Amino acid sequence: MKKVYFDHAAGNPLLPDVLKAMVSFMETSYGNPAAIHDWGDDPREALEEARNQVASLIGGRPEEIIFTGSATESNNFAVKGLALARKKKGRHVIVSAIEHFSVLYAARTLEKWGFEVSFAPVDGHGLLDPEEVRRLIRKETTLISVMHGNGEVGTVEPIEEIAKIAREHDVVFHTDAVATAGTIPVDVDRLGLDALSLAGNQFYGPVGAAALWVRKGVRIMPLLDGGVQEGGRRAGTENIPAIVGLGVAAKLARVEMEERLKKLTPLRDLLIEGIPEKVNRVVLTGHPTIRLPNHASFCVEFIEGEAMLMLLNSSGFAAASGSACTSRALKASHVLLAMGLPHELAQGSVVFTLGLENNREEVEDLLGSLPQIIGRLRDMSPLYAKFLKGVKG
Amino acid sequence: MKKVYFDHAAGNPLLPDVLKAMVSFMETSYGNPAAIHDWGDDPREALEEARNQVASLIGGRPEEIIFTGSATESNNFAVKGLALARKKKGRHVIVSAIEHFSVLYAARTLEKWGFEVSFAPVDGHGLLDPEEVRRLIRKETTLISVMHGNGEVGTVEPIEEIAKIAREHDVVFHTDAVATAGTIPVDVDRLGLDALSLAGNQFYGPVGAAALWVRKGVRIMPLLDGGVQEGGRRAGTENIPAIVGLGVAAKLARVEMEERLKKLTPLRDLLIEGIPEKVNRVVLTGHPTIRLPNHASFCVEFIEGEAMLMLLNSSGFAAASGSACTSRALKASHVLLAMGLPHELAQGSVVFTLGLENNREEVEDLLGSLPQIIGRLRDMSPLYAKFLKGVKG
Repeated sequence: MKKVYFDHAAGNPLLPDVLKAMVSFMETSYGNPAAIHDWGDDPREALEEARNQVASLIGGRPEEIIFTGSATESNNFAVKGLALARKKKGRHVIVSAIEHFSVLYAARTLEKWGFEVSFAPVDGHGLLDPEEVRRLIRKETTLISVMHGNGEVGTVEPIEEIAKIAREHDVVFHTDAVATAGTIPVDVDRLGLDALSLAGNQFYGPVGAAALWVRKGVRIMPLLDGGVQEGGRRAGTENIPAIVGLGVAAKLARVEMEERLKKLTPLRDLLIEGIPEKVNRVVLTGHPTIRLPNHASFCVEFIEGEAMLMLLNSSGFAAASGSACTSRALKASHVLLAMGLPHELAQGSVVFTLGLENNREEVEDLLGSLPQIIGRLRDMSPLYAKFLKGVKG
Repeated sequence: MKKVYFDHAAGNPLLPDVLKAMVSFMETSYGNPAAIHDWGDDPREALEEARNQVASLIGGRPEEIIFTGSATESNNFAVKGLALARKKKGRHVIVSAIEHFSVLYAARTLEKWGFEVSFAPVDGHGLLDPEEVRRLIRKETTLISVMHGNGEVGTVEPIEEIAKIAREHDVVFHTDAVATAGTIPVDVDRLGLDALSLAGNQFYGPVGAAALWVRKGVRIMPLLDGGVQEGGRRAGTENIPAIVGLGVAAKLARVEMEERLKKLTPLRDLLIEGIPEKVNRVVLTGHPTIRLPNHASFCVEFIEGEAMLMLLNSSGFAAASGSACTSRALKASHVLLAMGLPHELAQGSVVFTLGLENNREEVEDLLGSLPQIIGRLRDMSPLYAKFLKGVKG
């Protein structure tokens, strides 16, 4: 059986050049970049080259890049570190209701530490109205964190407008750009950001290296205390092989972005148009057009997401239901509920995320197989039987 | 010129089997272990195999291992997470004065959060008297963190006795075993520990993967909030290639430990005995016998550590001055000062850490070269000129 991978948001194959750079580094270099001897030279140069490459991807300055170990760490660092650095000014923070758990639960931890958090609502497409954010701002507000692209429903948020409102109120603005940086154009100056999280494993780089960009002059408290690495803002021996991989992936993402978008967007549109044509009672989740170029997400009525993933898998297709971090948490998605989807529909969520190795034939294979897969599941569904009875009734 | 690496505490070459396992994983596997499809199977199995391997190294149970991104993260997680989980019981924490900065500054952060921290003193050998810890315990004490082996002076602390005292007072005991786990025998039950930090890059594993072992039933607050990875205690997509490398390194460390100790200890002793014979006005730092088997550290009078490292380097030898995290911080070592060394002597610190690829010839080369290197530096030292004048005068 041919096997097709449509779960790129959860994990990506490394690009050959990324793998090559990492392996070559791991084979030859093991010094500490802080060392005062020759063995530290290669790691130190590799670290700074990667810093340049990551900064270039988002239009930031190299010294504004703080390498971290994961997107989750970048988001925790941003939300907690930016809020704590401002707590004398105020203890009110705004995040959107559809943030990734690493932002949402970091905000919940702030609540335990005496902060107040407001959760900005979204519409049925998962889109946040910037005016909703404006309404939530108070005198004590010091930080707004709204994601750039949502990994569960694909919607891309109007962060430029939100950043503008934040700036008008002298509030620091952070965006979780994990789903967008390296995938669509992101420029920190054009967007008017103060801080941005990104992760290499979203654009064919390795796990184990991510970054938080913080605009020069914006204060942040460390999450990891200790040594003086990363300008004293993030302690711990640098994971240079992974950072090298992140750097190469960032360079390639910047150079090849246009070409990649030309390849991925039509495949996504084929899914978005094709699936509701082939299968009845399916709704696209997220915005129909303002969405990630490699992301097609749906809710299928009368079906439970996990069963759908298992049957897709046994037909050779890898997909996800919500985010990778929650697939096994067995909870209805907070994103879909915030968008107002009824609980029973939110259960039937399925997310296809495309990658560079996918092609039109694979998408058509899925479109060909899906009606039968859904049909088999519905045949077993008591809810569907009840529904049919009602229709025929 | 032959080049010799004596800075293994700052960075280790990967063992061939570790590199092979990591590269093989990176080439073939990229799924998310949380995925509900076949691509998640290999990563999930690799993760659990590594968990078993790391648990075996320290005599813990696999479900008690929490993978982290670095030793610094493990220590921050332990100190902050264990203290926060107990704050209703009390807000007093004890750490030793010679902890690594990732423990020391994590404790400083606890102070900012309203905790009180006591710093247990050490003697001139860097050894902590367990009775000093007992004296510092109060009704409000909830956590004691004392390192197992000190990376700057090599002293191995009596943590079994300290753990016993902690247990008598119902206080949780954490040890930073980064310098010892994988190097000397460490058994969490025999030592009576509640939590332990370890890192693979101290025993020929990769950077980017470390672990915190927490005894079953001991509560800890997450440092990284978000997804449900690592039993909900550490969010973030797992860095499986690095974790695979850590697992293989842990297995090899366990199997080969005796053999490695037989190889390294005599080389260390050659340095400890040879250097004070060859160079005058040099003192061994740390305990002469109760010390790490691969660690020889000294203070050289009338000389500045950084200049010594540079001249050693230009003679082909890599060494360190204090810990890697502070080499470039240009501060006198808090460890040496806590041991009561005068400031001017503490400036001349040099640390040699041996590894498996080192041999007797390399150590003898260093012993042969050192008198000339120190001599050249002293010729340039105004302090030494003054001293000589005093002696002659």
